[in-house]
Amino acid sequence: MTTGIFLDRLHRARASMQQSGVDVLLVSVGSDLPYLTGYEAMPLERLTMLVVPRDGDATLVIPRLEAPRVAEQPGAFSLRPWNETDDPVAIVASLVGRPEVAAVGDTMWARFLVELLGHWPNSTTRYVRSTEVMNELRMRKDAAEIAALQAAGAAADRVAAQLHAGDIPLVGRTEAEVSADISARLLAEGHDVVNFAIVAAGENAASPHHHPGSRVIRDGELVLCDFGGTMAGYCSDITRCVSLGAPPAEVAEAYAVLHEAQAAGVAAGVVGAACQDVDRASRTVIADAGWGEYFIHRTGHGIGMEAHEDPYMVEGNTLPIAAGHAFSVEPGIYVDGKWGMRLEDIVVASDAGPISMNHADHSLVVLG
Amino acid sequence: MTTGIFLDRLHRARASMQQSGVDVLLVSVGSDLPYLTGYEAMPLERLTMLVVPRDGDATLVIPRLEAPRVAEQPGAFSLRPWNETDDPVAIVASLVGRPEVAAVGDTMWARFLVELLGHWPNSTTRYVRSTEVMNELRMRKDAAEIAALQAAGAAADRVAAQLHAGDIPLVGRTEAEVSADISARLLAEGHDVVNFAIVAAGENAASPHHHPGSRVIRDGELVLCDFGGTMAGYCSDITRCVSLGAPPAEVAEAYAVLHEAQAAGVAAGVVGAACQDVDRASRTVIADAGWGEYFIHRTGHGIGMEAHEDPYMVEGNTLPIAAGHAFSVEPGIYVDGKWGMRLEDIVVASDAGPISMNHADHSLVVLG
Repeated sequence: MTTGIFLDRLHRARASMQQSGVDVLLVSVGSDLPYLTGYEAMPLERLTMLVVPRDGDATLVIPRLEAPRVAEQPGAFSLRPWNETDDPVAIVASLVGRPEVAAVGDTMWARFLVELLGHWPNSTTRYVRSTEVMNELRMRKDAAEIAALQAAGAAADRVAAQLHAGDIPLVGRTEAEVSADISARLLAEGHDVVNFAIVAAGENAASPHHHPGSRVIRDGELVLCDFGGTMAGYCSDITRCVSLGAPPAEVAEAYAVLHEAQAAGVAAGVVGAACQDVDRASRTVIADAGWGEYFIHRTGHGIGMEAHEDPYMVEGNTLPIAAGHAFSVEPGIYVDGKWGMRLEDIVVASDAGPISMNHADHSLVVLG
Repeated sequence: MTTGIFLDRLHRARASMQQSGVDVLLVSVGSDLPYLTGYEAMPLERLTMLVVPRDGDATLVIPRLEAPRVAEQPGAFSLRPWNETDDPVAIVASLVGRPEVAAVGDTMWARFLVELLGHWPNSTTRYVRSTEVMNELRMRKDAAEIAALQAAGAAADRVAAQLHAGDIPLVGRTEAEVSADISARLLAEGHDVVNFAIVAAGENAASPHHHPGSRVIRDGELVLCDFGGTMAGYCSDITRCVSLGAPPAEVAEAYAVLHEAQAAGVAAGVVGAACQDVDRASRTVIADAGWGEYFIHRTGHGIGMEAHEDPYMVEGNTLPIAAGHAFSVEPGIYVDGKWGMRLEDIVVASDAGPISMNHADHSLVVLG
């Protein structure tokens, strides 16, 4: 990426600070930093922090031994390396006068905010989340970002197709073995990092975030696979279920409801609708079919440089969907002790309607 | 691990809170949580937080859909699941009256502390780092923890031995390829997760945290390999350099100094010495040989459940070393544009003297 992109994003961040009355933006580990500078900090105890005053030059405070890793972006920010015996939080505090409002990065380590409170107590400085500044920028994906989401989605789709084709052995293997197999395939298809590969068989799938373990997958079971990774900086995330043998009538009926609910959620993701409308669209279909109490989570989350980010598709979120918003639509039905199912695509809202990043078969594919 | 271990650790944490005047301990993502409860939270936007009042029962506030993943420890803590439309920070704040002193986990996401400030402003609540409560417990490894560090160290040693034996091809491969090879070997030797595998050839090794890239390794170069992972919850971390062909006189001389400096640092890691004495011991050897300005970082970091944790072996840290303290000793010499070298073992202090967790050959092994 060229320096121009970072200059433009910093410019827009400052405009957003102006609008929301934020005096200084402080971002550390997490995605805001690479979004604004191209540099990703290692999540370590040595503080890396970009200090962006609303009306002054931006400074990247960085451990001296990390400084060689930074690709400098002339005009965007200057480097302020600190030595092993320096106090980096004191350096940050010295770069700007005590602000009235400071926006701090969501995933910054709390220890640094604890130390910052010693310099800028919140009796005089009000702290807000960096999302107040960054959300307007980060949520609206530009063309290059949407292309990256499409490429990551297509790579995840190829792994889903391998699952559907029976290329990934299931019966007789443990969930953990299948999870490792899917992870290797995500990398082989172009992901740089695997973020998760949930494999949950039978009754284990009733726990939506089940950790794949030593449970052996057996014939006749429903298997839920939810996997994704990061590719060229942007995330994939897809869920498909397969049935090992013809599913019982109850499962088949529930899946038909789930399939319809997921499609309804996608269709509701239009520009101008509220985020909660996507949740309501999926939830209504499931509730009307009598499964309402078994759909125990929100319908979706935003996605981009992070696997989960704003906007969230959840009751109470009245934020209007805008062109470029990217999010998952992933209703599920979970029956404790018996089975669980979820169906998930990533969708990008556009003025032409919702565009799915995933095209893998949405039906309950029967294997074996 | 049995519930007894967690009950004992919580008991000692409360004793430490008593001593340091902390009213409530709040831990979220990171190692304090599994250390106290056996449960590791996923680093996601849904808050998981253990609330430990000094004089009341502990509560694990957790997203309802994660609750099935918790192995409950009766008597140690109770669960407080929250629903998708609840405000988990408000729930945390409601569990205890406004505390005078709250200790918050180091790696907790800052967004939750920002939100907590809305309930407990720091005009009335003083915030401190959880390390004030937890360091006394976490730093002193017990016998089971030391055994885990030894097992992880032995696994890393086996990969170092493969490097020394020439089993890991270097010449003609990229740093990234060798890094992937080392990572696979760390897993094959028993690690659950690879934390890092730095491979830096020639002039790239002058950047201590070099990110392995497309640079092809050539004959005649010095190659620095610094790698480690997590095995059964505890970390390994080792650095060895190899020379592809006989090293130039300058490199051989510098390595002899480095080797002596590393041994001096290990020898200084005795119970009762200050942490900074380890740094001074290594640094003095290097400075006396005229390379002082090329040793640009601290000598070591603590290690345990985290790859980097207290205590740090750095000038200014006067903390006395105690039996059970585990830390790296890793001096380095870095000549910009030419080469870099580092030699690292993990050491555990004991009443019988420093015990190394690593035994791989410390010399500059010549390959090819």
